[in-house]
Amino acid sequence: MPSVQEIYKKKTRKSSKLFAKAKKVHINGVHHNIRFFEPYPFVTKSAEGKFLRDVDSNKYVDYWMGHWSLILGHAQKQVQKKAAGQLKKGWMHGTSNENAIALSEKISKAVPVAEKIRYASTGTEATMYSVRLARAVTGKKIIAKIDGGWHGYTTDLLKTVNWPFDVSESQGLTDEEHIVSLPLNNLEESLRILKSVKKDLAGVLIEPVLGGGGAIPATQEYLQGIQEMAKRNNSLFMLDEIVTGFRFRYGCLYPKMKLDPDIVTLGKIVGGGFPIGVICGKDEIMQHANTSINSKKNRTYIGGGTFSANPLSMMAGETTLGILKNKENTLYKKLDGLGNQTTKMLRKIFSDEVIVTGKGSLFMTHFPRNGMTEINNAADAAKCDSTKLFKYHFEMIAKNGIFFLPGKLGAFSDAHSIADVKEMKKATESYVTGLKR
Amino acid sequence: MPSVQEIYKKKTRKSSKLFAKAKKVHINGVHHNIRFFEPYPFVTKSAEGKFLRDVDSNKYVDYWMGHWSLILGHAQKQVQKKAAGQLKKGWMHGTSNENAIALSEKISKAVPVAEKIRYASTGTEATMYSVRLARAVTGKKIIAKIDGGWHGYTTDLLKTVNWPFDVSESQGLTDEEHIVSLPLNNLEESLRILKSVKKDLAGVLIEPVLGGGGAIPATQEYLQGIQEMAKRNNSLFMLDEIVTGFRFRYGCLYPKMKLDPDIVTLGKIVGGGFPIGVICGKDEIMQHANTSINSKKNRTYIGGGTFSANPLSMMAGETTLGILKNKENTLYKKLDGLGNQTTKMLRKIFSDEVIVTGKGSLFMTHFPRNGMTEINNAADAAKCDSTKLFKYHFEMIAKNGIFFLPGKLGAFSDAHSIADVKEMKKATESYVTGLKR
Repeated sequence: MPSVQEIYKKKTRKSSKLFAKAKKVHINGVHHNIRFFEPYPFVTKSAEGKFLRDVDSNKYVDYWMGHWSLILGHAQKQVQKKAAGQLKKGWMHGTSNENAIALSEKISKAVPVAEKIRYASTGTEATMYSVRLARAVTGKKIIAKIDGGWHGYTTDLLKTVNWPFDVSESQGLTDEEHIVSLPLNNLEESLRILKSVKKDLAGVLIEPVLGGGGAIPATQEYLQGIQEMAKRNNSLFMLDEIVTGFRFRYGCLYPKMKLDPDIVTLGKIVGGGFPIGVICGKDEIMQHANTSINSKKNRTYIGGGTFSANPLSMMAGETTLGILKNKENTLYKKLDGLGNQTTKMLRKIFSDEVIVTGKGSLFMTHFPRNGMTEINNAADAAKCDSTKLFKYHFEMIAKNGIFFLPGKLGAFSDAHSIADVKEMKKATESYVTGLKR
Repeated sequence: MPSVQEIYKKKTRKSSKLFAKAKKVHINGVHHNIRFFEPYPFVTKSAEGKFLRDVDSNKYVDYWMGHWSLILGHAQKQVQKKAAGQLKKGWMHGTSNENAIALSEKISKAVPVAEKIRYASTGTEATMYSVRLARAVTGKKIIAKIDGGWHGYTTDLLKTVNWPFDVSESQGLTDEEHIVSLPLNNLEESLRILKSVKKDLAGVLIEPVLGGGGAIPATQEYLQGIQEMAKRNNSLFMLDEIVTGFRFRYGCLYPKMKLDPDIVTLGKIVGGGFPIGVICGKDEIMQHANTSINSKKNRTYIGGGTFSANPLSMMAGETTLGILKNKENTLYKKLDGLGNQTTKMLRKIFSDEVIVTGKGSLFMTHFPRNGMTEINNAADAAKCDSTKLFKYHFEMIAKNGIFFLPGKLGAFSDAHSIADVKEMKKATESYVTGLKR
């Protein structure tokens, strides 16, 4: 019987050749480190609804969904139509445009903290500006983040992302001493660390559900405890909702957790899959960045950039939020349902072999070692057997036309249905049977 | 007679109302600080060819051209068609795609240093990664830039952008001590500064034509002198060609100046106006970022990001370069001609009142004070009377339907023609006549 590798290689011959070309001109062939997997990632030709199609005409049901940006599925028709219309009016004016106002009015209505908004082009830029604002507003320097927290590649936050957390994420960083890191959901230890730096603590930045770090929700108690300490200390409490914003409800997760952040960053879903990063904040904080009322001496210099608030991203974002708003009573229930059923299904098939974490339509399978029974933070997740997860995901790519970025969490979109859960169930059962053989 | 302000306000009533809305939700109403101008910027409705159209249906011949990205003009038909086609195949796969390979093959053929390429989504990200690479490769920390050099909002390079250079660009920065700054075209002083930090000098990053800093070309002698020192010192010599790449020829400016950079950043034109940032470098340097051959301990962690190498930006970039390649024998001659004639025209009309700097299709008018006769760097440019330039630009917006972002340099595109130079001539003559009245 051919091995899984052989099956994959056989069906992705054109990808193999193209990826060899990609490696000639690109570092490791990819433009986001996590997009590479062994022996080589297939090369996508097109995407529509729930499907990715590769250059060998293989079809995959996609659970990666554009880094979880595409909550409506790939190439959604209405967004596509509006975007095509916008192309005729220009994709990049370099000046103020109506679309940005329309999108912001939707965001600020749904996200209370968004009294003022500024657009950047990526999440990396949005979190960088949040850090800069926190330091400017407080006059302090230290930013606390979470072990395993991923806020993009900005120098200001590139620390303790991947296990082992005590090893630098990269050579060439210069300012890691101004970042401290906390274990998610361990309030006592987190408060101890925060107290040890409280004199110079500018702010805390947290994802309410750890995304790249393993799809691990923060508890309400934990976030409230951190927020209380931050506020008491006159440090900023900031939430990174780039993954979670508009993922579980029309708006952010934080109001449901009775939190009151000073700054929230958004991205992904609110751009409809077009480049976007959003800094939302309370007026008094955001005004620090107003260059008309602050001189060079006392301003906080935050973006933009050339592509900021370009009319195409703004149009796609506004259209996406419009669709989400219209469907909010049914869509989120559907997505949460798909996620919950998948979680249940995976737990059942793998029995005690796995821990499935996540929330609603975001889910991740972990293969614990040494009798671990709970995953509460990224350190727990890092102790799981990632090779097993990779093997499981890769087999589904090779044999079943089901795509998870190997080792990463999955996300449902509106293009998925219960039939997809059933397909995944069949594939998983077959995988587990194979293991026992 | 109504004042220029009154004329502007009268014809931009809808913009006035919309911009008031924008100010309610956006910091100072804009998403790039420089896009604001008094009393308020008009709000663009659409753009095509050389024209911007605002919400009051005013038409402006645009010389801002999407932060100088749109060398083919706004909403160029072929790019539009290809982009619309791509929309149907998905704008954001989140996986490897063919378009990125096609664009890179074009870039690496035209830009010798691009032995390896990695895409980010903005110029800010591309320069940030260059800095990180330089520090990683050399094990040193200090980056030298140019007074007035603009490399985006990244924390790693946000220093000495705006006059006065000795005042921080922003509150909330933490690592300015690792940036030193050099006066453009003053080789002796620049070498003195570089020598004073040579033990910890990771690299030098320079725009071959200072963009935002005043459209001031670096001399070949200056760049060669800096390069020689950097190489002798085992520091990286890096060029930021985000503005200049594919602006004056099909390729970069540096080969014409007999330079041999280690890293070159691209953006703007090579994305056809869609979000892009490109890090191009020699293979041995770029391999530091290869996460398949380097462990966490010795890798340089550089981007992407969620939107990196998205198939839409890649398609637009490749189409744009294809058009430029086809037209290279005529287009650059045409654009340079328009720029040179404009420069001559402005010098003649303003006589000794102005100094016009720039290169080819990029040009900027300066109103010198105190008998200054040459502008060799950003400090010279900063000593000019920016109020006069603003007044001149604003009057052309209000009275003539000619748009320069007030106070900034202008750029020609393929959509412009000699008729536009004549219109600008008429407008400028009328402005000068008005001054004498």
